[in-house]
Amino acid sequence: MLVLMTDFGVAGPYVGQMKAVLFREAPGIPVVELFSDAPRCNPRASAYLLAAYAEDFVPGTVFLAVVDPGVGTDARRPLVMEADGRWFVGPDNGLFAIVARRAVACRCWDINWRPSRLSASFHGRDLFAPVAAMLARGEEPPGQLRACSNFAWPDDLAEVVYVDSFGNAMTGLRADLIAHDAVLVVAGHELRYATTFGVVGVGDAFWYENGNGLVELAINQASAAERLGVTIGTPVHVQALS
Amino acid sequence: MLVLMTDFGVAGPYVGQMKAVLFREAPGIPVVELFSDAPRCNPRASAYLLAAYAEDFVPGTVFLAVVDPGVGTDARRPLVMEADGRWFVGPDNGLFAIVARRAVACRCWDINWRPSRLSASFHGRDLFAPVAAMLARGEEPPGQLRACSNFAWPDDLAEVVYVDSFGNAMTGLRADLIAHDAVLVVAGHELRYATTFGVVGVGDAFWYENGNGLVELAINQASAAERLGVTIGTPVHVQALS
Amino acid sequence: MLVLMTDFGVAGPYVGQMKAVLFREAPGIPVVELFSDAPRCNPRASAYLLAAYAEDFVPGTVFLAVVDPGVGTDARRPLVMEADGRWFVGPDNGLFAIVARRAVACRCWDINWRPSRLSASFHGRDLFAPVAAMLARGEEPPGQLRACSNFAWPDDLAEVVYVDSFGNAMTGLRADLIAHDAVLVVAGHELRYATTFGVVGVGDAFWYENGNGLVELAINQASAAERLGVTIGTPVHVQALS
Repeated sequence: MLVLMTDFGVAGPYVGQMKAVLFREAPGIPVVELFSDAPRCNPRASAYLLAAYAEDFVPGTVFLAVVDPGVGTDARRPLVMEADGRWFVGPDNGLFAIVARRAVACRCWDINWRPSRLSASFHGRDLFAPVAAMLARGEEPPGQLRACSNFAWPDDLAEVVYVDSFGNAMTGLRADLIAHDAVLVVAGHELRYATTFGVVGVGDAFWYENGNGLVELAINQASAAERLGVTIGTPVHVQALS
Repeated sequence: MLVLMTDFGVAGPYVGQMKAVLFREAPGIPVVELFSDAPRCNPRASAYLLAAYAEDFVPGTVFLAVVDPGVGTDARRPLVMEADGRWFVGPDNGLFAIVARRAVACRCWDINWRPSRLSASFHGRDLFAPVAAMLARGEEPPGQLRACSNFAWPDDLAEVVYVDSFGNAMTGLRADLIAHDAVLVVAGHELRYATTFGVVGVGDAFWYENGNGLVELAINQASAAERLGVTIGTPVHVQALS
Repeated sequence: MLVLMTDFGVAGPYVGQMKAVLFREAPGIPVVELFSDAPRCNPRASAYLLAAYAEDFVPGTVFLAVVDPGVGTDARRPLVMEADGRWFVGPDNGLFAIVARRAVACRCWDINWRPSRLSASFHGRDLFAPVAAMLARGEEPPGQLRACSNFAWPDDLAEVVYVDSFGNAMTGLRADLIAHDAVLVVAGHELRYATTFGVVGVGDAFWYENGNGLVELAINQASAAERLGVTIGTPVHVQALS
C-alpha cells in the first residue's frame, strides 16, 4: 500500500498529479490519502502526527510524505528511510525524525536518482512519487546508505499539532504517558480526561486519547479549537492532580 | 462496490484511515466516497440524503455510513442492514431509517463481532469498516438477526437537509410528490419550479428536481443558501398554486 | 487512465457519483481527480488550466471534464474530442478550445448516445461519465464526426486563472514565452522572477514557472492571492525590463 501525507490541501491538482504518477509507475497498488492537510510548511508538527498515524500500517507500507517549504533548494536532501519495515520517502527536513526515534531499527539513504524532468517547485510529483513507486514495486532504494539526520526535538511535543475539521485539537503527546487524572492547561482553560465524546455533556470540553494514541482536546459537538482559542503551536501544560 | 458516507469532513485522516482498512480487508473492490460532508452529527438529515443517493447503486453494493455522535456509548448499537439487496453498515441511530422504510424487504442484524483493538472514538475504522469489508467479500453479517428499529420521522422531510458547495440547498422532499406548479416558501422567499439552471436568468432563484429526485433550492450561478439565508434544518412550506 | 476535471467542489456527492459510474463501466481502469475545484462556471479560465495540466498525461488518457454552466440547455452540445491521442469528453463550451489549438491533430464528435435516464442538471454522471468509460474501454466515440468549434480566445491568457490552496495565483500565460527579466504588474504590484519558493525571503512576492509551465504569482510561505489582492480574472501585464 502507498500512503500519502502532504500539506498540499484537499483542493487543487497536486495530490491528483502525484496519484497519477503512482498509478502509472506502480499499477495495481492501492493508494491512500492519509493527510492532504498536514500542518502547512511545518515539518516539526507533521513529524509527531506521522509517527502516530503510521503505526496503523503494516510493514511493507510505503509512505510518500511531502511537507517541504525548502523545495528546490539545496538546504534539504531527498531521503528514503526504512523504519521497522515501513518505508518513507520525502525531504530530509525532520518530517521523519519522530518515526526514526521510536523505531527499533532505522536506515537512511540519499536519493541519487533524478528524473529526466525535475521542476523547481514540485519534487513531490517529479522525484518523490517515482521513488515511492519503485519501493512499492519492491525495488531497492535508488541511492546511497548514510547516517540518519538528528533533530533536537523532544520525544513528545506538548503543543497542538493538528486541528481536524470537527475542531478537535491533537497534541504531540502520547496519551499512554499521561495519567488519566492529569489536568491539561491550554490557553487558560483546564481540561479533564474523558474516554469519548458521548460520555460528557454537549458543549463540554475534555481531553481524551484519540484513535491513534495522541492526547486530543475536544468539545462534544462543538469546535474545541474555536472555543478554547487554540491553533497549531499552542502550548499544552500537563498538571498532575494533587 | 463499497460506498462511504460520513460527516468526517473532506480534510483530515479519517476517511483515508477507513479506506486503508477496506483496501486491506477487501482487496480489489472499488471504494467510492459518496459524502464525506454529510450533515454533521445529524443522523436524521443524513437519513433522507442517504435514501435518495443510495438508489443510484445496484444490489450488492455495501454502504459504510458513519454519522455517529453517540460513538463509544451504549446508547446506539452497531448495525448491519440489508434492504432490497443493498447492504448498510453503521450505527443504529436512525441513519438507515428512511432507506428501511422505502424498501420492499429489509433485515437487520446486531453486530456481535469485535476487533482486537476497539478505540473509544473511531468505530468507523475499527468496527464498521472491517464489517463492511466482510460483507463486500461476500461473507454473512457477523451478528444476530433482530427486528429493525423504528424512528418516528416523517416519510419526507420538509426541511433543508444539505447545502452543496455551489450553495444549492437540498430538501428531504421527493420531487415526484410535489406538483410543478407548487410554490415553495422558505425563509420568507417564494420559489417557483424550473427544470434546470440554464433556463432561468443568472441570479434567479427557483426549485427543481435534482439528479437524485430531491427538491432542491437553487440560484443560477450564485449561492442559494447564502442569498436566501437557509441552512440545514430550515423549514420548507409547499403551497399549491390557487 | 481516466482523469477528472470539474468545478463541483471537493465536498459533496458529485465527484463520487461520477467515479461510481466509471468504476462500474470501466472496471480496473485507474481514476484520478485532477481538479475538483476548476474555476467555477468559467470554461474559459478552465481551458487554459486544462491545456497546461493535460500535458502530463500520455496518449490514451481519457479526460472527463465538466465545467458546464449551460447544463440541460440546448446552448451547448455534448462533445468528444481527440487531440494528439488524448481523449476529452464534456460540454462544447470552450473548455477544450486551448487543448485543441495547441494540438498537432484534433478531431471532434457530437455525442449521439443518450442514457436511459438523463437528469436535467447532472450530465456529468448521466451522459459524460458513461461516454468516458466507453472510450477508456477502447470503444469508438458514440457519435458523429464534425468540425471542431472555434472560440475567439487568445493563445495565452494574461489573467489569473486559478488560485490554489496556498494562495498561489496561476495565470494563463506559458512561462517559456516570457523572458526571466520581465516584470509582471498585477493589481498595482511589480513582481520579478525567481526559480522557486526557497530562494526568496519568507514573505517575498515573485513570479515563477510552475510545475506545469504556467506563469504563477507567489509569496514564500504566505498567500499571494490575499496579499496582492488578486482573484480569477485579475489582469496581468508583462513589462520587459528596460
